[in-house]
Amino acid sequence: MSLSMKLHITSTHLNPMLNSQTINKSTSTNYNTKIRSKPIYHCNPLISTVYKSTMHASSFSYSSCSVRSSLIEPDGGALVDLVVPESERAKKTSDAEALPKVRLTKIDTEWVHVISEGWASPLRGFMRENEYLQSLHFNSLKMADGHVVNMSLPIVLAIDDKTKELIGSSPDVGLVGPKGDLVGILRSIEIYKHNKEERIARTWGTTAPGLPYVDEVITPAGNWLIGGDLEVLNPIKYGDGLDHYRLSPLQLRKEFDRRQADAVFAFQLRNPVHNGHALLMNDTRRRLLEMGYKKPILLLHPLGGFTKADDVPLDVRMEQHSKVLEDGILDPETTIVSIFPSPMHYAGPTEVQWHAKARINAGANFYIVGRDPAGMGHPTEKRDLYDPDHGKKVLSMAPGLEKLNILPFRVAAYDNVEKKMAFFDPSRAKDFLFISGTKMRTYARSGENPPDGFMCPSGWKVLVKYYESMQAEEASQQQAVFST
Amino acid sequence: MSLSMKLHITSTHLNPMLNSQTINKSTSTNYNTKIRSKPIYHCNPLISTVYKSTMHASSFSYSSCSVRSSLIEPDGGALVDLVVPESERAKKTSDAEALPKVRLTKIDTEWVHVISEGWASPLRGFMRENEYLQSLHFNSLKMADGHVVNMSLPIVLAIDDKTKELIGSSPDVGLVGPKGDLVGILRSIEIYKHNKEERIARTWGTTAPGLPYVDEVITPAGNWLIGGDLEVLNPIKYGDGLDHYRLSPLQLRKEFDRRQADAVFAFQLRNPVHNGHALLMNDTRRRLLEMGYKKPILLLHPLGGFTKADDVPLDVRMEQHSKVLEDGILDPETTIVSIFPSPMHYAGPTEVQWHAKARINAGANFYIVGRDPAGMGHPTEKRDLYDPDHGKKVLSMAPGLEKLNILPFRVAAYDNVEKKMAFFDPSRAKDFLFISGTKMRTYARSGENPPDGFMCPSGWKVLVKYYESMQAEEASQQQAVFST
Repeated sequence: MSLSMKLHITSTHLNPMLNSQTINKSTSTNYNTKIRSKPIYHCNPLISTVYKSTMHASSFSYSSCSVRSSLIEPDGGALVDLVVPESERAKKTSDAEALPKVRLTKIDTEWVHVISEGWASPLRGFMRENEYLQSLHFNSLKMADGHVVNMSLPIVLAIDDKTKELIGSSPDVGLVGPKGDLVGILRSIEIYKHNKEERIARTWGTTAPGLPYVDEVITPAGNWLIGGDLEVLNPIKYGDGLDHYRLSPLQLRKEFDRRQADAVFAFQLRNPVHNGHALLMNDTRRRLLEMGYKKPILLLHPLGGFTKADDVPLDVRMEQHSKVLEDGILDPETTIVSIFPSPMHYAGPTEVQWHAKARINAGANFYIVGRDPAGMGHPTEKRDLYDPDHGKKVLSMAPGLEKLNILPFRVAAYDNVEKKMAFFDPSRAKDFLFISGTKMRTYARSGENPPDGFMCPSGWKVLVKYYESMQAEEASQQQAVFST
Repeated sequence: MSLSMKLHITSTHLNPMLNSQTINKSTSTNYNTKIRSKPIYHCNPLISTVYKSTMHASSFSYSSCSVRSSLIEPDGGALVDLVVPESERAKKTSDAEALPKVRLTKIDTEWVHVISEGWASPLRGFMRENEYLQSLHFNSLKMADGHVVNMSLPIVLAIDDKTKELIGSSPDVGLVGPKGDLVGILRSIEIYKHNKEERIARTWGTTAPGLPYVDEVITPAGNWLIGGDLEVLNPIKYGDGLDHYRLSPLQLRKEFDRRQADAVFAFQLRNPVHNGHALLMNDTRRRLLEMGYKKPILLLHPLGGFTKADDVPLDVRMEQHSKVLEDGILDPETTIVSIFPSPMHYAGPTEVQWHAKARINAGANFYIVGRDPAGMGHPTEKRDLYDPDHGKKVLSMAPGLEKLNILPFRVAAYDNVEKKMAFFDPSRAKDFLFISGTKMRTYARSGENPPDGFMCPSGWKVLVKYYESMQAEEASQQQAVFST
């Protein structure tokens, strides 16, 4: 299988800002030099230039928003921004206080974050039934003007019977975070039945027990869904030392423009970056240059919301990613590392559409897709839950994603002859070693080193350190059990 | 809830043939007079004028086909007809004989029937993986020119490991009917995995045991699907005395034109017609006349393929329907009774799209949809499998069905005050009696009469006779068991 590129080159293809004199090239150069001299982890170089604009971001309302990508339009034509402008914050807060309240879980708050920054544009709140049904049955939404946007995951808020009763006939509700803080308002609400079985079956293509998002989020949730228009009182922050990595679609678009990107290729991941990943990202870059692009920018975009228990935690992954850039495996000058705030469903071909669609909104016009995206093992059978090729196939067919260039990539594996990660060559299959996530974790846990060239040594150390600390913790817990 | 009409009046709305002088009005009158004097059952009045054209129908090939509805275009622009022209039949038969064979089940043959006559236009055979995935994830297919047609059910042919091995690398296969007769050829085949669990979950929104189509068709089927271009050697016939009711989309379109229809409203059913059904069909007709249509024609279109064991069998239903027309409950002059050859999935909102889409191909531009279309009770829980309102909601949103006018109808029930079936009036709910299919069967089985005005007496007698014969058979079987 070769890396083939399906291109949709439109009139917006060339960045109209490229020749603009307003961009200070010397600043840009200094900035890039600075990246090389400092580790990325805990010091996102973007913070100085972009992060401050968070403060302004909230002053964009949907109607007045004029930010459009120079490379690709957000779905619906304009980026949704649902953070209340500062001038209205006091008034809206007092509005919210007077309303019946809905308590959000941690993962609900992640969705509030996602919706409020426009990752799900043109969605303006948790889905009403009309949107939910379209998402569930058609993986897309039809807009008033007849055009279709992709929307493969139901983005919904569940409530229980008691909360439904409490809301009564109120048209609006206040949203309260897990710690009791007032997060926002949901306006012109609609409450409808939460048929969990149907939602699970149509989203995952199975109802087998053991799906992480189902067990964690859906099973404990209430039997009603509440949709409405969202207003968020303050930008969502986590205070985990990683907020500076959480660039909104608006901030990313500004940064792509500032870097004069004429192509942005996004790479979604929820695992540490090994040299096979790096190979294909660098290979993609090379091909984009061959195709005539002058400034392709890589958006290395780890998922930051809910992940399953045995995935490597976000902070460890971010530290690992920063080592990969420090070691020069990926070029910091042409790479932006940022966190995608969405929770993970592990819903394979259905979810990969969401991953791609959200990156359109962030300004990416190329999307890299590999083997079995957003997949996992079947929870009760000894097989992959999804056909590993279905993700890229479904992505290439998905309604509303036509404007995105899908880049399916060849499988990389460890080449025992060349002693490095390389694209798999079926003619000498026996020379290649496939190192799965499970295998990688087993190496790290046992203190055994993977073959040379699998991952940059400093990145590998981050993982080993994490698993050592895990084992130490487990041991001390066991000791605590024995001593009681 | 009131009967609201969503209209899409296009330039093809008025039948260009309406003023044609080529139509012999006196013939038309004689013909209609004839209907009244004869029972419809076993003597479809259409047979004399339309059925003979079956012989010609097969001479239409896709490329040369110029038949277009005067009211609504078939999906893809031209009606698919995959019956081999008579001149090529001998040659194709000998081709088929030389090919590796795939054995069809009874229900596979029903699908061959459906595909070959163009009910699933523009589908030209059993789905390849590309079509299967689009159907499963998006309930629609994107055509080469970018436009979208609805396709909510996977129309697929399963084979087992042994058959797959037998086919080897042959590009084509012969199709053999359940009785060993050569049915057709599948060309340029593609064999891909049949992930039954995923197919079931995404089609039904549940994987609970006890779904009739799953138990009967999918569970016993092989682990591979085979797609390809279909050629059918002879029109599919059943020899059950009902073939004259099985009008193809082409034949129906011709008949609508012959009757100078300026609106065709289709009513899908798999149950006996009671006076509540008749009320809404007649009410729809009245409303269409009020809207300015001069010749609205009702297509009363019972499903003729696989149904679950406790549904009333097709021959009994057809006899019951004929009584309803004989008794003048429905007007034979403006009604066409014909059999829709599709098997039934009982897949609710997913299946109702198929039911509507197929009727577009048959020339209907209005589609009546009621409560819980294609629904059933949950197989393992005490509730409806689908939200009874989701069918009509999903239908109104479905991609590719925009050109069809969806007519949601008000619920009819037995009005104990007026002593007849009437539209349910929630302000005096206690006056109404809902007679479910189960309740109706209990009446018929026990010999008890339903309230006067529930169904025309001659139609009711057909049901009573059927249940009596069932009971007699059961009794004789029991006796046989005791005497052994």
